[in-house]
Amino acid sequence: MKDTAIAKNNPQPFPMTERTLLTQPTVGIDIGGTKINAAIVVPDAPAGEDCWRSLLNAHTPADSETFLRTLSDMINQLKQESPIQAVGIATAGVVDSIHGQILGSTGNMPALTHLRNLKERVEAEVQLPVHVENDANAAAYGEWCYGAAQGARNMFAITLGTGVGMGIVFNGQMYRGSHFYAGEGGHIAISYRRERKCTCGRWDCWEAFASGTGLQKTAELAVEAATETAQAEFKAKYCTNEEVTTYAVIAAWKDGNPIGHQIMDEWHHHIAVGLGSLINVMDPDMIVVGGGLAQFVNFDLLLERTRERSMSAAFNLVPATLGNYAGIVGAAYLAQEAQR
Amino acid sequence: MKDTAIAKNNPQPFPMTERTLLTQPTVGIDIGGTKINAAIVVPDAPAGEDCWRSLLNAHTPADSETFLRTLSDMINQLKQESPIQAVGIATAGVVDSIHGQILGSTGNMPALTHLRNLKERVEAEVQLPVHVENDANAAAYGEWCYGAAQGARNMFAITLGTGVGMGIVFNGQMYRGSHFYAGEGGHIAISYRRERKCTCGRWDCWEAFASGTGLQKTAELAVEAATETAQAEFKAKYCTNEEVTTYAVIAAWKDGNPIGHQIMDEWHHHIAVGLGSLINVMDPDMIVVGGGLAQFVNFDLLLERTRERSMSAAFNLVPATLGNYAGIVGAAYLAQEAQR
Repeated sequence: MKDTAIAKNNPQPFPMTERTLLTQPTVGIDIGGTKINAAIVVPDAPAGEDCWRSLLNAHTPADSETFLRTLSDMINQLKQESPIQAVGIATAGVVDSIHGQILGSTGNMPALTHLRNLKERVEAEVQLPVHVENDANAAAYGEWCYGAAQGARNMFAITLGTGVGMGIVFNGQMYRGSHFYAGEGGHIAISYRRERKCTCGRWDCWEAFASGTGLQKTAELAVEAATETAQAEFKAKYCTNEEVTTYAVIAAWKDGNPIGHQIMDEWHHHIAVGLGSLINVMDPDMIVVGGGLAQFVNFDLLLERTRERSMSAAFNLVPATLGNYAGIVGAAYLAQEAQR
Repeated sequence: MKDTAIAKNNPQPFPMTERTLLTQPTVGIDIGGTKINAAIVVPDAPAGEDCWRSLLNAHTPADSETFLRTLSDMINQLKQESPIQAVGIATAGVVDSIHGQILGSTGNMPALTHLRNLKERVEAEVQLPVHVENDANAAAYGEWCYGAAQGARNMFAITLGTGVGMGIVFNGQMYRGSHFYAGEGGHIAISYRRERKCTCGRWDCWEAFASGTGLQKTAELAVEAATETAQAEFKAKYCTNEEVTTYAVIAAWKDGNPIGHQIMDEWHHHIAVGLGSLINVMDPDMIVVGGGLAQFVNFDLLLERTRERSMSAAFNLVPATLGNYAGIVGAAYLAQEAQR
C-alpha cells in the first residue's frame, strides 16, 4: 500500500531499477492510417539522444495479406541488423494486449479488420515474440520510459491531433482498465448540453473541442459570430475559398489578428477544462502533451488555465519529446515488459 | 503487466486470496461534520451480514482537545470488548495516509485544524497503530472489501450527498495519486461555459450539478423557467415559504408532477455525464453509487444514460450496500492493510 502514494508536493520519482530498462534491441512499429513506421529501439543510447535506429517506413496497405507481408518484411530486414528480442506493435483501436487481439474499431485501416489476431499472425511470420498495444498507450509509455515523463510515478500523456489520444501510467505500470478501454480521455464530456457531436457518435466529448477538428469548429463559430467587416477581413487574409481551416487560424493567430487570438484562447480553455478534470481524478505528477497540434500550445497559458481547474497544483505539464517516435519506443519497451 | 488487464466483457474477479481479508477485530471510525461514528469491524461476520459491532457515536466537538479525548474514549471503550489490532479513521479533507496527516481543508471541522498530525496524536493516546484516510476513499474501500464491489479489479464509488465524493480502487489497491488528491471526481467539469460556481470556488464541477446542492440549483432554474401557473402550483403544493428544496423536488417527483419529473430527469442526465467521463478514463468493472441521495436514483435510467456516454458497456453500476457504515468498514480494512 505504502508505495502507491507519496508525500504532497514531493513526488518521489519512480526508481530506475523498478522501471522497465531495455536489455536488448527490440523492434518498435507504429501503424498509422497512411504510414507504417518501424525501427530498432536500442538499450544503449547515450542519455538525451534518440534511442531508435534504422528507421523504415511504408505506406499502409489496405489489403490484409499485403499488410502482413509488409510488416514481416520490415521486421525481417531489422532482424538482419541486430539480435532482436521481441517486436512491439502500436496500432489504433481497442487492443487486448494480453492476447494481442484488436477488439474495437480499426478506424481507417481496412486491412486490420481481417487481422484481429495480429500477434499470432505476425509471430507465425517472424518467429519472434510480438506484443500489440493501443497506439496512444504505447506513446504514453514511450514518453514515460524514455521521453518527457521519465521518473514519474503516475502520469498521463495526451496527443492533440485529428483526435485526442491518451495513455496512462499508474505506479509505473501501463494502465489499461478492466476491458482495455481505459484512457479514452478524448471522450470525457466537457459539456452536458448536447452541443457538439463527436466523431465517436457521442455528445460533447473533449476531443470535439480540443482536437484539430474541434479547433476548426470553434474557429468556424467564432468567425460566424464576428462583425461582417472582421469576418470579411479574416476570410480575405487567411482563408482559401472562404474555408476556415486550422491553418487559417494559426496564420491569423501568429499575425496578431483578434479573431485568431480569441479562437486560440478558447482552444486553450477547452484543453484546460479537460486536463483539469483528468488531474482531479488521477492526481498525476506529470502530464505530457504531444501530437501534431502541440507545437501551437502556449504551455504557460495552458498551465495557468489548467491550475484554475485543478485541486492539486503539484503537477508538471510538459511537451512530449519523442515526437512521432513515442509509439515506436513505447511499443518496444512494452514488448520487452510482456516477456517477463 | 499481465495481471493489470483482463479480457473484454469477462472481467476476472480479483482473487479473494490477494484481497485484504481482516484477520483480527479492528476499530473503524468515521468523523463527520456533526457526528463521530465508531465500531469494531470483525473478521468472522457471516456472509451477507453486517461486519461491525458495538456501534458508538458522539457529537463532533469543535475543540481539539475535547475532540481527541472523545476519540480516545471511544477507542478505549471498544478495546475493552475485543483484542483490537489497529484503528482506522476516515475523515474529510486531503489526507496523507502514509504519515496520517491532514493536508487540505478540513471543511466544517475546526477541531482538526489543530490536529493535522492525527495519527501521531491518537496513537499516543491509545497505544494502537492508527491509520487515517480520506472518508470517500475509505467508503470506496469498504464497498470493495465487504460491500457492493467485492471481487472487482478496478472500481470506483461515488457518494451523492451535499457534495459528490469519490474513491478509487485500481488492481485491488486504494488509488491515492501522487499527492493524495486522486479521486476528486466531484470536481471534474461537466461544462466549459462558466455557468455554475462550485463550493470549491471552481466553475462547473460535476458536484455543482449532481450533488444535493446541484439538484436544488437545477430545481430552482426549472421552476423559474416554468409557466406562471405551473410555478404557482408547484410552490403551493410542495414548497414551504416558496423555497424550492430537494425535499420539494422529491415530493413533486413522487407525486408525478411534470416539473418534478423534468428536474429528476435532468439530475440523472447530469450524473450520467460525469459517470460517462469517469468510465472512459478508468474503464472499471464496477461502479458503486451511495450517499444520502442514492435512494432517489433510478438505477435503470441512470445505467441507460451512462451507457450512451461510455465507450465500454462492460461495467456494472450498483447501489452501495454498506450505507453509512462504508467509511467505518473501509477505514478498518485499510488500517490492517497499513500494518503489512
